[in-house]
Amino acid sequence: MDAQSPVGKVETWLAHFNEALATQNMEALKGLFAEDCYWRDLVAFTWNIKTMEGRDAIAEMAGSVLGDVRPCNWQIEGDASEADGITEAWLTFETDAVRGKGHVRLNDQGCWTLLTTAQELKGHEEAKGPTRPHGVTHGAFKDRETYAEAREREARELGYTKQPYVVIVGGGQGGIALGARLRRLNVPTIIIEKNERAGDSWRKRYKSLCLHDPVWYDHLPYLPFPDHWPVFSPKDKIGDWLESYTKIMELNYWTRSTCERASYDAATGEWTVVVDRDGEEVILKPKQLVLATGMSGVPNMPDLPGMDAFKGEIQHSSQHPGPDAYAGKKVVVVGSNNSSHDICAALWEAGADVTMAQRSTTHIVKSETRRELAWGALYSEEAVANGITTDTADLIFASLPYKVLPALQKAACDETRKRDADFYDRLEKAGFKLDFGADDTGLFMKYLRRGSGYYIDVGASELVADGSIKLAHGQVTEMTETGVKLEDGTEIPADLVVFATGYGSMNGWAAKLISQEVADKVGKCWGLGSDTPKDPGPWEGELRNMWKPTQQEALWFHGGNLHQSRHYSQFLALQLKAREAGLPTPVYGLASVFHKS
Amino acid sequence: MDAQSPVGKVETWLAHFNEALATQNMEALKGLFAEDCYWRDLVAFTWNIKTMEGRDAIAEMAGSVLGDVRPCNWQIEGDASEADGITEAWLTFETDAVRGKGHVRLNDQGCWTLLTTAQELKGHEEAKGPTRPHGVTHGAFKDRETYAEAREREARELGYTKQPYVVIVGGGQGGIALGARLRRLNVPTIIIEKNERAGDSWRKRYKSLCLHDPVWYDHLPYLPFPDHWPVFSPKDKIGDWLESYTKIMELNYWTRSTCERASYDAATGEWTVVVDRDGEEVILKPKQLVLATGMSGVPNMPDLPGMDAFKGEIQHSSQHPGPDAYAGKKVVVVGSNNSSHDICAALWEAGADVTMAQRSTTHIVKSETRRELAWGALYSEEAVANGITTDTADLIFASLPYKVLPALQKAACDETRKRDADFYDRLEKAGFKLDFGADDTGLFMKYLRRGSGYYIDVGASELVADGSIKLAHGQVTEMTETGVKLEDGTEIPADLVVFATGYGSMNGWAAKLISQEVADKVGKCWGLGSDTPKDPGPWEGELRNMWKPTQQEALWFHGGNLHQSRHYSQFLALQLKAREAGLPTPVYGLASVFHKS
Repeated sequence: MDAQSPVGKVETWLAHFNEALATQNMEALKGLFAEDCYWRDLVAFTWNIKTMEGRDAIAEMAGSVLGDVRPCNWQIEGDASEADGITEAWLTFETDAVRGKGHVRLNDQGCWTLLTTAQELKGHEEAKGPTRPHGVTHGAFKDRETYAEAREREARELGYTKQPYVVIVGGGQGGIALGARLRRLNVPTIIIEKNERAGDSWRKRYKSLCLHDPVWYDHLPYLPFPDHWPVFSPKDKIGDWLESYTKIMELNYWTRSTCERASYDAATGEWTVVVDRDGEEVILKPKQLVLATGMSGVPNMPDLPGMDAFKGEIQHSSQHPGPDAYAGKKVVVVGSNNSSHDICAALWEAGADVTMAQRSTTHIVKSETRRELAWGALYSEEAVANGITTDTADLIFASLPYKVLPALQKAACDETRKRDADFYDRLEKAGFKLDFGADDTGLFMKYLRRGSGYYIDVGASELVADGSIKLAHGQVTEMTETGVKLEDGTEIPADLVVFATGYGSMNGWAAKLISQEVADKVGKCWGLGSDTPKDPGPWEGELRNMWKPTQQEALWFHGGNLHQSRHYSQFLALQLKAREAGLPTPVYGLASVFHKS
Repeated sequence: MDAQSPVGKVETWLAHFNEALATQNMEALKGLFAEDCYWRDLVAFTWNIKTMEGRDAIAEMAGSVLGDVRPCNWQIEGDASEADGITEAWLTFETDAVRGKGHVRLNDQGCWTLLTTAQELKGHEEAKGPTRPHGVTHGAFKDRETYAEAREREARELGYTKQPYVVIVGGGQGGIALGARLRRLNVPTIIIEKNERAGDSWRKRYKSLCLHDPVWYDHLPYLPFPDHWPVFSPKDKIGDWLESYTKIMELNYWTRSTCERASYDAATGEWTVVVDRDGEEVILKPKQLVLATGMSGVPNMPDLPGMDAFKGEIQHSSQHPGPDAYAGKKVVVVGSNNSSHDICAALWEAGADVTMAQRSTTHIVKSETRRELAWGALYSEEAVANGITTDTADLIFASLPYKVLPALQKAACDETRKRDADFYDRLEKAGFKLDFGADDTGLFMKYLRRGSGYYIDVGASELVADGSIKLAHGQVTEMTETGVKLEDGTEIPADLVVFATGYGSMNGWAAKLISQEVADKVGKCWGLGSDTPKDPGPWEGELRNMWKPTQQEALWFHGGNLHQSRHYSQFLALQLKAREAGLPTPVYGLASVFHKS
């Protein structure tokens, strides 16, 4: 082995790294990392989702956990590669509890980024491939219970005579992906979904809705879309897919079911979850409760003077039924992000007279540009052709610490701005107020920091640019009998006012279902602490409360887009399985709470 | 390139082969084949499914078709390999109409086996991967039709204001796999299924039924089972999978629908198909009619003296509802093949008193032995680990001409017999009459030749061996008020008699739905002409009438196990698409009819 080859460099580093860990030599460990360095761990070392930033933080974590974790058997997987002074490679390793996969980037000082992820719990692996079940018990047995009978019995008993270990509130893509992983890990789970059918949370939205992310980004675990699946899935198609998926994966998925309230008994380590199941009250007693109610939390509905007097209809965007009833009507849509644009365009298509009331600047990016510049390398047909599987893409993405993302995203944002300069010009000429993020880092950073403030253009921007969708500016200060009044005194007549005014933090669901006390204890969800609008500091390094232990024992938050639902459900499922299996799960660095919402 | 390396040998041969084809030099072509040689073509050269056996047959075919087909661009795909004096390689090629894939085996005389298959029609490729649909039309359009609306409109119009190009009678795995391929090829198709839900043809069978083939053999096209799928799928699970599959693939699948009758107008090239759709009569006018009614055809029900007098119940095995109502009852099951064994075992499990009436010798093979010896190399976890995809396995399997199969199968059968000698001894000691096929070639040859005469043991044989299932021997000659009477005069009392007496040839469905004249014109389906029991000669070289043009224009037969439904649906779909697209499809070597049933 040539020590100066990429593989040689990684092997040398890995040997030293292994030695430092095995001997718990923290000084040696620090010496292996560059001055600017990151170790991101997904459940392998910390039983947490945590990025250690800098040598001291890394040494502190390692010093704290190594006695329990005992990592070993570090190997390079495949080849290493080198470009722009960075050598990178995939790693495999084990700890006492898990088999892991990692990724390392070295520069001339040492390690710049290290990712460690738990892939499976030893002794609690998913039964798949060579270990898949046999399916039929060959032989002959008096009063044999068939597959269908066993499945029917499970569905009948779970939640009644047998308690689930996990209850997931919310059966959208998040709850479904997590449910599928827990099913494969053999963790008894019930998913509570308010709608009649799985997928209705998509079907019931406005009729022109399609996914804004391309198909390669949207796969669920285990069962990829067939290769004729459209690039941008229409909402009903994704709804039908989710419904088939729940059946194929045999989830215990309770439709027409609403979680009424939940409370935790710390003494017994048990939740009491009151569910209205299609009119029947059922009390569930799970050990773990997951809120997968959508990362958007509870709708923000402003309380304006004059609302009672308004003679038309008022809706939050989440209640908007689509445009069909509003042909020829005057509609004001308050807000200028994704929902507002989608709703305005669909209303215009249906023949309504539409005004968008823009309250603050908005970031716009054309869907095709984003598809190419944001996802092309990892999630595209080209990536598939280059052998980048969905799992590989997810891990590459995970290997980039949140701290270094803005610089990478800014480059893509700058290129977007240059490429679509004419488009942005036309929008500004029409009076639309644009931004490109607090530090010009664009859409994805806004998504991570605040989950709002942008529109992925699939057509509405041209309607704004050419005046088909009218623009108004400023906060709505009150409503009159016939419309809305803006802060500058402008009055806009309306038959319908749609408040596309976003959602509160996801811990609003904890307030609603559990208690304000618990909601305050766990604090704000989502966001990084970037000290940009709607994402106050201090810097936290990971998304707040998502997919990891919270300040409330046995309460978890799961959500995000299809990519996050797929990828992070793996780590949340492993955390839940470890607890169900009774493994020790000492959490390192449980995040403090700095904001209540 | 070393001319003596495996690749070198194939390249040399291929260059000569290409030259002989391009110059239509039949003498040169013959010289490139070994004395014992086969060219199997699936739709690429012959617009037929056809094996040319021997140099003369090959030259005759080539001489007849080359002017139209114009093959070119022959390439080796991947590496070549060499073992036991045989050099083999994958090939790609094109003709005027298709892109093809092939496989060649060379021996020291020249080519021993050549497979050529059509993979796609030029200009009519499936939209997949890089050519997948976009899904949403970005932009804004007045009165946009959404995906859900377009799909709903298609379902509403097809068969009423718009006619399908293809009607498939029968919505089991065969009809579903073909329907999925036609959907991807954009051929308007309706599938007629008598049951309430897709998958009911599995669900409604006896409750202990599981697939007898392992999971790797059973994938449908485009959407493989997830990797936790059990080795042997229980019937309800496969039923649910088929149902989800029809939805995911968006098939126009008419449930509760029965084909009443069909007739062909040669002048207009159009079928008139009368369908009872959930009580409503609908007249369909497709150009092509596919019978996918199950390769087993119409049930054989004997007409015995005394049947009217019998006071118990009489069922054909296809009508048997499962054992639940027969605990404590006396049951005689006539026949000793798969259905009989499965039904007997389930009845025994449920507490019935069961006698199996064996009419002739039966071939038995233990499921696990078969899994290992019959499928291990191509369809197993090991094969997957060796990089053998389902498509690759299917093509390797297709590359072995039917003529050479018996010798290969005999080796596996001999090994089976040796390995399970004790098992066979015990069965014979219990009085069970065994065979191993007319030429000791075992189960798969029986399947191909007659589709019957065997049981894949998943447990019932032990019940036969230990006397739990009682045995009787000989033909049933009459029924009495209280039971059955065998040819030797033995009377067996029964509350229920199940005739597991098999099915007629699939052209019985043509007789039933079209006319006896058409059934006679197309003749017997299935079987090879091996001159063994129930498969009279002359030798035909391919399965009769399956997946290929028949003597009745525009009438096709589709069926078989999950492997055949998957693999041959590809070639049937391409034949149908070519006709829909108006391509010339001159059929070479349309098979003559030697037997009416």
